[in-house]
Order: sequence, then structure tokens, then C-alpha cells
Amino acid sequence: MENVSKIWLGPLPADSPYVKPFRMYYIQNGVEKNWDLLKVHDSVAIILYNSSRQKLVLVRQFRPAVYHGVITSEKGTFDSVDLQSFPPSIGVTLELCAGIVDKSKSWVEIAREEVLEECGYDVPVERIEEVMVYRSGVGSSGAKQAMYYCEVSDADKANSGGGVDDEIIEVVELSLDEAKRMLQKGAVNNSPPSCLMGLLWFFANKAPAAV
Amino acid sequence: MENVSKIWLGPLPADSPYVKPFRMYYIQNGVEKNWDLLKVHDSVAIILYNSSRQKLVLVRQFRPAVYHGVITSEKGTFDSVDLQSFPPSIGVTLELCAGIVDKSKSWVEIAREEVLEECGYDVPVERIEEVMVYRSGVGSSGAKQAMYYCEVSDADKANSGGGVDDEIIEVVELSLDEAKRMLQKGAVNNSPPSCLMGLLWFFANKAPAAV
Repeated sequence: MENVSKIWLGPLPADSPYVKPFRMYYIQNGVEKNWDLLKVHDSVAIILYNSSRQKLVLVRQFRPAVYHGVITSEKGTFDSVDLQSFPPSIGVTLELCAGIVDKSKSWVEIAREEVLEECGYDVPVERIEEVMVYRSGVGSSGAKQAMYYCEVSDADKANSGGGVDDEIIEVVELSLDEAKRMLQKGAVNNSPPSCLMGLLWFFANKAPAAV
Repeated sequence: MENVSKIWLGPLPADSPYVKPFRMYYIQNGVEKNWDLLKVHDSVAIILYNSSRQKLVLVRQFRPAVYHGVITSEKGTFDSVDLQSFPPSIGVTLELCAGIVDKSKSWVEIAREEVLEECGYDVPVERIEEVMVYRSGVGSSGAKQAMYYCEVSDADKANSGGGVDDEIIEVVELSLDEAKRMLQKGAVNNSPPSCLMGLLWFFANKAPAAV
């Protein structure tokens, strides 16, 4: 997956379909203020639990934004990328199955498709339960994300997952002990807060009693 | 707080200190790909619990990015803003005390300052405990956020909080029952996942046993 052989940066094209930045101006209590922000797609995320094996099902992938963020957290802005000093593996994340909302379908149907495409489980929408709806990136994008929970079994497995088109996504099964370790201080998986939130929610609401 | 009397949009200035968008190009498994992303500041967030009153201490504020996101989730992109149809209150969030890392100080010291500036509690860094470190906006920014926990009491209260400079931030105390309701399906507070994660972590690790 981290088979990334070259990385370089360029300006954002004006017609980017993914990142649309602008400045919002507003008058609050009589004072003119402004805030720089961007429009990104709304999204869904799904907490997947395979009860046949008592495993949580997550995905690993190379995330360009995380790769860039890890480097800038360490050394500030940069122009060229030294793959020896900063191997692509530093940009690999462990996340919940997720996807952007860009289709004329219901959100839960999009969640159903992501579960099938990324993780290979074919389940009807009736088995996908809404957990919470919230806003990500309140300082920069304010995009909506809906989180769902779905319990699956080996009988639901329809394919090996891994994404569609040119996505490179690895399906990862975590034991409940492994998932608990992700929530300890000092664990570093480049995971987003939504993933950690989903795991905490699972342990509070769905995990087998003995865990 | 929602006393916002006018809102309008403009292009992102090239010298924005807050949002620096660009396109990353990379070669993965021999295929050239690209990803649009932006650099935003790393940040800290603090789960604050006032044990004198058994209240969690959060902050409410108008968030331009959330205001914009709520409208676009409903009606797509827009140019002009109708404050009658979309009152500024739809952009108000309930969040953990938080702040960006833009100073030459340690992260926990920045957390200490935010607790004092936003919520009015004066505590030494020794009482601020690291909870988790993770990456926000894995699809767009990959910024780092460190979450802390701090138990305070009424004796630590030094001022009324509310932020510095032209920040307009309202300190909100939630009973543990109120915080639990935020975590139920259907609760909508425009809260970010980090806040919901922090509350779930609190209930799993720090809440008084009777709760």
C-alpha cells in the first residue's frame, strides 16, 4: 500500500471538485470579522463488528493530507519531499469504513455501498443503525458526518473489499483487545477522532458483556 | 452571541494565514494520482470537569465554517446569504475548550492557556493529563490534535472566561445527564467528533461511579 515512489506539490487548481476555499465575512456585535474556510463533501462512517469472529473491521490507507500534516507538524511548511526522511508509511491511517456523500442516494444507502465496496460485506440497509450525526472540522469545513453501526457475520461476506476504481484500501480486523489499545494514551495510528469516537461508542453500547 | 447582522462570501486571499490549499501529486503502485488538501493549524482540546459541581465545562460559539456547512448540506453551494431563512444560530456549536497551536510553547502549556482564556480556570500544567493524540480531517488537512483531561474545582476559577481579543465564546456547564443526552441518536449540537469522543472517554474513564 505504501508503495509510493514520488511525491510533489502544486497549486490548487481553481476547478478542484474536492476543495473549494474562500473567505466568509460577517458582522458580529457590530464588528466586521472574517474567517477562511472551505467546502468539503459531507460523509458517512460505519462502525463494523463481525460477530462471527468478534472482530472490529477497519480500513488502512495512505492519506496524502495526513502525510503532509505529519511532516508539517514536525518541520513546518515544505516544497519538496524527501521520501527517505519521511517514508510514505507515516501517512497511513487506520479508520472506520467511510465515504463521501456525492450521490443522489440516501445516506444509509451510501453507507451500505461503502461497507460492500471497502470491506466486502453485503448487508441490507435495515441492518444499519444510525449512531450520531455531527460536524467535522468546525474550524475549517463544518462538513456533516453521519455515523452508523452495523453488525455483520462471515455469512455476509460477498467479496474481499479494498475499494473501487483506483482506491487502495486494506481491510483490517482488530480484536477487541487491540481496539482497546488504540484508545490508550500514547497509541498513535493517525486515526481520526471519528474512528476513536466510534470505538468508544462501541465499547459503551455494543461490545459483548465479557469485554 | 448569534448577533450576526450580515454575512457575505469572497475569494480566499493568497496570503491567508489560516487556510493554505494546494494539490499533492504522488505515484502509487506506478500510477500517478493527486489529492487536494490544505494546511491548517494543529490544535489542542481539553475535557474539563468541575468536580465542585459535577459539571462538564464546554464552550458555545458561532462558527462560520459550520454555518456555511449547514446551508450547503441542505441546498448546495450559494453566493448570497439570506439570514431569515438561515439564521446565524444554525452555525453555533457546542465544543470542548480548544485552541490552535501557533506559539513557541509546549502543547500542554497552550492547553493551560486555553483553559484560562476560554473557561476562566487557572490550573498548573501538572494537573493536565494527556488523553489521546490523533489526526483530524484525514481527507482534507490531516492536522494533529492532542486531547487533554483536567479536573477543576470552583477554587480554580480566576475569571469568567469567554476568550481573548475579539473572540465571542460562551462557557456552558453541562450536568452529566445533559452530556449523556448529547451522545444519543438524534441529538444535534453541531458538535465536532472530538467533543463527542471526549465525552465518551470521560464516561468510560473519569465519571463518578454513580453515573
